[in-house]
Amino acid sequence: MDRAELRVGLVGYAFMGTAHSLAWRTVNKVFDLPLRARTVAICGRDEGNVAAAADRLGWEEHLTDWRELVARDDIDVIDVCTPGDLHAEISTAALAAGKHVLCEKPLANTADEARAMADAAARAAASGVRSACGYNYRRFPAVALMRQLVADGRLGTIRHVRAVYLQDWVADPGIPLLWRLEKDRAGSGALGDIGAHIVDLTQYVTGQRITGVSALTETFVKERPLLTSTPDNPEFGPVTVDDAVLFTARLDGGAVATYEATRFATGRKNALRVEVNGSLGSVAFDLERLNELEFHDAAAPRSEGGFRRILATEPDHAYMSAWWPSGCALGYEHSFTHELRDFIAAVAAGEDPTPSFADALQVQLVLDAVERSAGRESTWTKVEA
Amino acid sequence: MDRAELRVGLVGYAFMGTAHSLAWRTVNKVFDLPLRARTVAICGRDEGNVAAAADRLGWEEHLTDWRELVARDDIDVIDVCTPGDLHAEISTAALAAGKHVLCEKPLANTADEARAMADAAARAAASGVRSACGYNYRRFPAVALMRQLVADGRLGTIRHVRAVYLQDWVADPGIPLLWRLEKDRAGSGALGDIGAHIVDLTQYVTGQRITGVSALTETFVKERPLLTSTPDNPEFGPVTVDDAVLFTARLDGGAVATYEATRFATGRKNALRVEVNGSLGSVAFDLERLNELEFHDAAAPRSEGGFRRILATEPDHAYMSAWWPSGCALGYEHSFTHELRDFIAAVAAGEDPTPSFADALQVQLVLDAVERSAGRESTWTKVEA
Amino acid sequence: MDRAELRVGLVGYAFMGTAHSLAWRTVNKVFDLPLRARTVAICGRDEGNVAAAADRLGWEEHLTDWRELVARDDIDVIDVCTPGDLHAEISTAALAAGKHVLCEKPLANTADEARAMADAAARAAASGVRSACGYNYRRFPAVALMRQLVADGRLGTIRHVRAVYLQDWVADPGIPLLWRLEKDRAGSGALGDIGAHIVDLTQYVTGQRITGVSALTETFVKERPLLTSTPDNPEFGPVTVDDAVLFTARLDGGAVATYEATRFATGRKNALRVEVNGSLGSVAFDLERLNELEFHDAAAPRSEGGFRRILATEPDHAYMSAWWPSGCALGYEHSFTHELRDFIAAVAAGEDPTPSFADALQVQLVLDAVERSAGRESTWTKVEA
Amino acid sequence: MDRAELRVGLVGYAFMGTAHSLAWRTVNKVFDLPLRARTVAICGRDEGNVAAAADRLGWEEHLTDWRELVARDDIDVIDVCTPGDLHAEISTAALAAGKHVLCEKPLANTADEARAMADAAARAAASGVRSACGYNYRRFPAVALMRQLVADGRLGTIRHVRAVYLQDWVADPGIPLLWRLEKDRAGSGALGDIGAHIVDLTQYVTGQRITGVSALTETFVKERPLLTSTPDNPEFGPVTVDDAVLFTARLDGGAVATYEATRFATGRKNALRVEVNGSLGSVAFDLERLNELEFHDAAAPRSEGGFRRILATEPDHAYMSAWWPSGCALGYEHSFTHELRDFIAAVAAGEDPTPSFADALQVQLVLDAVERSAGRESTWTKVEA
Repeated sequence: MDRAELRVGLVGYAFMGTAHSLAWRTVNKVFDLPLRARTVAICGRDEGNVAAAADRLGWEEHLTDWRELVARDDIDVIDVCTPGDLHAEISTAALAAGKHVLCEKPLANTADEARAMADAAARAAASGVRSACGYNYRRFPAVALMRQLVADGRLGTIRHVRAVYLQDWVADPGIPLLWRLEKDRAGSGALGDIGAHIVDLTQYVTGQRITGVSALTETFVKERPLLTSTPDNPEFGPVTVDDAVLFTARLDGGAVATYEATRFATGRKNALRVEVNGSLGSVAFDLERLNELEFHDAAAPRSEGGFRRILATEPDHAYMSAWWPSGCALGYEHSFTHELRDFIAAVAAGEDPTPSFADALQVQLVLDAVERSAGRESTWTKVEA
Repeated sequence: MDRAELRVGLVGYAFMGTAHSLAWRTVNKVFDLPLRARTVAICGRDEGNVAAAADRLGWEEHLTDWRELVARDDIDVIDVCTPGDLHAEISTAALAAGKHVLCEKPLANTADEARAMADAAARAAASGVRSACGYNYRRFPAVALMRQLVADGRLGTIRHVRAVYLQDWVADPGIPLLWRLEKDRAGSGALGDIGAHIVDLTQYVTGQRITGVSALTETFVKERPLLTSTPDNPEFGPVTVDDAVLFTARLDGGAVATYEATRFATGRKNALRVEVNGSLGSVAFDLERLNELEFHDAAAPRSEGGFRRILATEPDHAYMSAWWPSGCALGYEHSFTHELRDFIAAVAAGEDPTPSFADALQVQLVLDAVERSAGRESTWTKVEA
Repeated sequence: MDRAELRVGLVGYAFMGTAHSLAWRTVNKVFDLPLRARTVAICGRDEGNVAAAADRLGWEEHLTDWRELVARDDIDVIDVCTPGDLHAEISTAALAAGKHVLCEKPLANTADEARAMADAAARAAASGVRSACGYNYRRFPAVALMRQLVADGRLGTIRHVRAVYLQDWVADPGIPLLWRLEKDRAGSGALGDIGAHIVDLTQYVTGQRITGVSALTETFVKERPLLTSTPDNPEFGPVTVDDAVLFTARLDGGAVATYEATRFATGRKNALRVEVNGSLGSVAFDLERLNELEFHDAAAPRSEGGFRRILATEPDHAYMSAWWPSGCALGYEHSFTHELRDFIAAVAAGEDPTPSFADALQVQLVLDAVERSAGRESTWTKVEA
Repeated sequence: MDRAELRVGLVGYAFMGTAHSLAWRTVNKVFDLPLRARTVAICGRDEGNVAAAADRLGWEEHLTDWRELVARDDIDVIDVCTPGDLHAEISTAALAAGKHVLCEKPLANTADEARAMADAAARAAASGVRSACGYNYRRFPAVALMRQLVADGRLGTIRHVRAVYLQDWVADPGIPLLWRLEKDRAGSGALGDIGAHIVDLTQYVTGQRITGVSALTETFVKERPLLTSTPDNPEFGPVTVDDAVLFTARLDGGAVATYEATRFATGRKNALRVEVNGSLGSVAFDLERLNELEFHDAAAPRSEGGFRRILATEPDHAYMSAWWPSGCALGYEHSFTHELRDFIAAVAAGEDPTPSFADALQVQLVLDAVERSAGRESTWTKVEA
C-alpha cells in the first residue's frame, strides 16, 4: 500500500493517448507491481481539449508545452503518444532530462531520426534511464504463447513466415485527405502504420531478423477531397503515401517470408494475420480473434494432426492469472495494460524494457529497405545493419 | 466537468466485485454521461482483505458491515456483488433506504426470495428509486445487434432457439467441494450459475418468454474431497447441486427451444452459444468469439445465402463509437462497463434500467420450473406467471 | 481379374437409387475387393423412367415388378432404395429368397414393421444370408475416427452427447404438400428422415444406447398447397408430420444428451452436428464440413489445450488410402461407396455387415419412444428393449 | 439413349489417370450431354500395370505405345495424363492426327514446349479439332461463383489478389529423392506443381493477367536419400527443384498480388487459398473447404457487413442441379467430372473448350518469368506476351 510511485507525464490525448491513459489507470488495479503509476500530467497543444481530456481520463494536471513537462522534477516517465514527426524530439529531450521514455510505434518517421533516438537511448541507459517502444501487439497472451512455442523448439527450424495486416478504411475514394495520407506528416501510409506491426511481431515471435526484401507499393486512389472541400467548391489534393505495400523477405535464420499491409482489403477491419511454419510445427494468429492461437504439432500421430485452436485465456497463459476465470476474453486495449505492466516491472527491477529503441530502429531499417526496394522496381534490397 | 456525482457503495470484492470496480472506474472515462460515478466505499466481511481491495481497486473507504453502508447518507447506489444467499436481504434493505440497487445475477437463490425482491423494487420505483439485475451479457454489441435484428423483423417469425453454456472446470473429479457445489450456499449448480444466463439472453434477444419446460439434471461426480481434505486424512462430501442441466422449452411466441448448461464439456471454457432461427433469417452468437455475430438473411438470392460473420466492432454498433477504431476487439469485462453506462444513463434520465427485478424474477421462475420438472422425471412443467 | 461376381438388383431410381448406382459402379474401381459388383438389374414402377435410369446409370436390365427381381436366380443382392413404406415387404421377400439385402434407412415406417424385418434377418443369417441397413454417415473417415477415439478410451467416460440435424427446405410455407409431409407415406417428418441419422450416429460413435427420452414435436406450417393447387383454384391440405423434433435423452453408459432435428433452421442446409464430451476429451463433427473432425485431448498441457481440426484425409484415416493424396476432400456420395465396400467385404468374408437390421430396429424403437413422449406432453418414456 | 459416342483414349494410369478414368465413367451418369463418352483404351509403359488398370478402371483395351493409340481411327479424344515431359510430344501428335486433346496441367515443362503446343492447337482448331488444358480447380461451384461475382461487377475494381498453395509432404528431410524433386523430369518443384494452379485460378477468377513479377525460390533440404539408398549403403542426391516459391505481381487491370507455393507448410495439406479484394466487395476460397465461398458485399449496411459463408451446394450453383439435394458436399474428384462435362459439351457444340492451350501457355510464361526473376535476385521481370 505504501508502494513507491512512478509519476507519469503523457504527451498526446487522441487515440493512443486515450488508450494509454486507461491503461495507466488500470494497470495497478490488476497487477501486483512494486511501483504504483500516478497519472500526474497530460500534455497537448489545444488548451481546451487537453483540459477536457485530463478531466475525463483522470490526470491531475494538464499542460500545453511538452518541453515544460519534460523539465519538471516530479515526473519519472514520459509517455510519447504524438504523431510520428514529434517522436524523436520529445523522446531525446526526455531521455536527456533523465526521464524513462515509452514511445509509441513506429519509433520515427525516418531511419535517421530512429538512429538518433537509439543512440540517445543507449547513452541514457548507461545511467539507468529506461526506454521502450510501444509495439503493443507483443503483449497478447496468444502472441506470448506463439513466441514461447518457437523459443522452446516446438516448431523446429522455421521455414516460412507469412504476415498480412488488412484494413479497408480508405477503400472509399470519398474519404478525405487526412493527415495519415500525407507523407510530410505521416512518413508513410500502410507501411509505417500497420506494416511496422507485422515486421515487429514476426521478428519478435521467430527471434529472426529480416535481412533483405523485394517490395512494391501502390496508391490506388491518387487524389482525394481536401478536408476543406465542399460540394460548392470541391478541392482535391494528392495522396502522397502508399495505400498498400507487399514484399517478400529473407530472415537471418533461413526462413522466407511474405508481407502485405493494405488499407484497401474490403471487409477486413483489423486483420493482422501471422503464420509461421517450422519443421516440427506451425502456429497461426489473427488479431480479429486475438484470444486464440492455432497450433499444429507435427509430433502428433498423422491421423490426429491438425491445427488446434488454443483459447489463450487460461491462468497458465501470460498475464491471464491476474484477470478473469478461464475462458473470459480479453480485448484490444488489454495489450496496453500489459505493455505498461512489463514497462513498470522492468523499471522497478532496474532492467531495460523491451522492445528497446534499438529494436525499434531495426524495424525502421526494414521499412526503409522496403521503401527503397519499391522505389527501384522491387530490386532486392538489404536491410542496413 | 462539474457533473453531478453518483456515489457508489459496493458489497463484495471477489470476482464480480473486482469486475464491477474496474467498470465503475472506467465508465466515465469512456462514455459521456450526465452523472459521474464516484467510488465511495467497498464493503466485505474480512477487514484486511477489503482494505487491500479498496486500496487496489480505488475505493475511498472500506467497511465490513453492509448494513452500515446501506445506512449512509452519502451513498446513492448499492451494487450487490455477494454470493446469491445475500442478494435478497441486502437489496431489499438498500431499496428501503432509498438507494438505487444494481444486483448481480441470478437475482436470488429461490423463487420466493426473488418474488420478495421484485415486490420491493416495485414499491421503491414508485418513489423514483431504481433497480436492475446484472445480466451483463446483454451488453455486448453483438448481442445488441442480435436483438435489434429480431426486433426489426429481419428474422420473421421465430421458430427455434438453441442455447448451450458449456464449461469444463469441474470435469476433473479431484476438484474439491467448493461452495459453488453446495446447494445450501449456491442454490443450484450449472443451472443458476450459467443456465440463468442463457435463459435471460434468449428471452431478451427474442422478446419471447419461456412458458413451459421438460428438464433433466445430472450430477456426474457425486462426492468430492473436502477443502480440508489431506492426503493423510482424506475426507469427502456429497455434491448437492447439478453438474449439468438439459431442457426443452416452448416460448410464448410459438418458438421451440433446447437449453443445456454444463460444467463437464471438456475443452469448452466459456462456450455460451445461442442460435435463433426465424422464418426470414437466423442469427448465432458464441461468447468465446464475443465480437462476432453470425447472421443469415433469407432475403439474399439463394446462390448468395449464408451466415455472414459480422464483426460487431464498427462505430454503428451499440457502445462502439465510444471505444476504438473499427476492428478493435472488446473483451469480457466491457460488458460490465456497458452495464454501468446504461444504469447510470437510466438513473440520470429518471427511468427504470433493465433488466428489472421483475424481469430477473421471471428468469428465476423458469429455473424453478426446470428444477421441478427434473425432479418429476422430465414431466412438462409450466413456468409460473 | 477373374474375381467372383456379386450380382446386384436395385429397387428404386430416385435420389437414393442414383446415389447407390454410382457407388455400385465405382466401388471396385477404387477398392481392392474379393468380389466384383455387377449391376445386373434396376427396378421401378414407371417403365419409361426406369428404362432411362438403367441406360443412364449403367444397369444391364430394367424391370417394373420388384417381385420378379427378387425371384431371379442371377441376383445375389437386393438393394432397397424405395420409400419407407415398401422396405419391409421387399426386404423380407428378398431374404426369404436367399438374397443378401441392403435396405435404406430408416429401416421401416413403424416399429412393428422393423421388428418383423429384424426377425427375418435373423432367420436368414442362420443360413448365411446377409443384411444391413444404410446408415451411410457412419462411413465418413472423420466419423470412423470419432468412433475410434471413443473406443480407444481417448475420451474417457462419456458425459454428454449433443446432436442436431438442421435443414431449412420447408421453411417457406409456399412449399407444397410433398409426400414427405404426409404421415401415411413418410411415417414421420424430420424425425425419421434426419432425426434417425443422429440417433444412429451418436449411438454408433459412443457405443452407448439411448434408454429413455423426453420429447416434443412441432408442425409450424399446418397447411400447405396441394401439388394440384393452382392460382385459379387454390387447394390446401394438412401437414400430418412433424416439422421439428427436440428431445433429451439418457444413454446406457451414463451420458445425457440433447437431440434436435428440424426442417426450419433457416440458413442451415445439411447441418448434422454432433459433439461428444468425455472425462478425458471431446470430439465434434459437422456434416457441412465432412472431411474434418474436431478433437480436444484433455491430456494436453492446459496452456496447449484446444480443439484441433483434423483433416481426415490422410492415408491413415479409414478408406483414405484407396483415394487421393493427402488433403484431397471427399464428398457426400463417398459415404455410399464406403458403405458398399464394407458390405461387399463382409459378404465375401461370410460375416454380417453392420448396422444389422437388429441395430436399425433399435433406432426405430428410439424414434417410437420419441413419438410417444411427444404425444404425452414430454413425459419420460423408456425405449423398448 | 442412342447418343453419339465420344471415344476416349487415355495416356497414363497413375494419380491423374485414375482420377480421369473415374470421371470419364461417371460424367454421363450425372450430366445430360449430347455425346456419350466411351472409355476405349488406356495406355501406359508397363504392360502388367496398364492391363490391371484397364481392368480395374473400366477401359475396353490397353496399349503400351501412345503412338499406336494416337494412330487409331476409333479414337476421338486423347487425354494426356503423363508427367510433364511427355505433354508436348503426345499432344502435338494427337492434334496432328485430328484427335481432340485434353492435356493435364501444367501444359509443359518449359515455355518453349508450351509455345509449340499452343501453335499446334491453333492450327488444329482451324479444322475443328479441339484442345484444352486440365486446370480442374476452375470447375468447383464455389470457384465458378467467385468468377461470376467478379464478372457481374459485384466486387468493383479489383485491388488485391492474395494466393497461397500450402502443402507439407516433403517437410520431412527423410522423404527420398522422388522424380518430382528432380528438375530434369519435373521441370520445377512447387512452382509448376501447385504454383501453376494459383496462377491460373486467380487469373481465371479476376479476368486479369499477370504482367510482371518479383520472385524468390528456396530449396530448404538440398540433399535427400536416393530411392536406392539403404541403411547399410546410404546414398544421397541433390534436390534440383524449388521447395517453395514466393512472388509479388501486378495484374493488367491494376491489381497487386502476392503468391506463395510451398511443400514445407507443416500442417497444411492442400491449402490453396485465394482472396480477392475489390472496391465493392471481396471473396475468399480455401480448397480444404471447397464447398464454401466467403463473400463480403460492401453494399451491405456497415453494421451488417461481414464475410458470409456461402455453401455452394444449392441447385443454383454451377453443376449442382445435376447432383444431390441442397447441402450435400462435393469432393476433390468432382472437379474432374465437371471438367469432362464442359469438355464434352464444347466438343459437341463445335466450340473451343477452356482453358485453351493458349491460356495455359500464358500461365507457363508467368512461371517462366517467376523463375527468371528468382534467378536474378528478385529483379522485376515482365511476363512475355
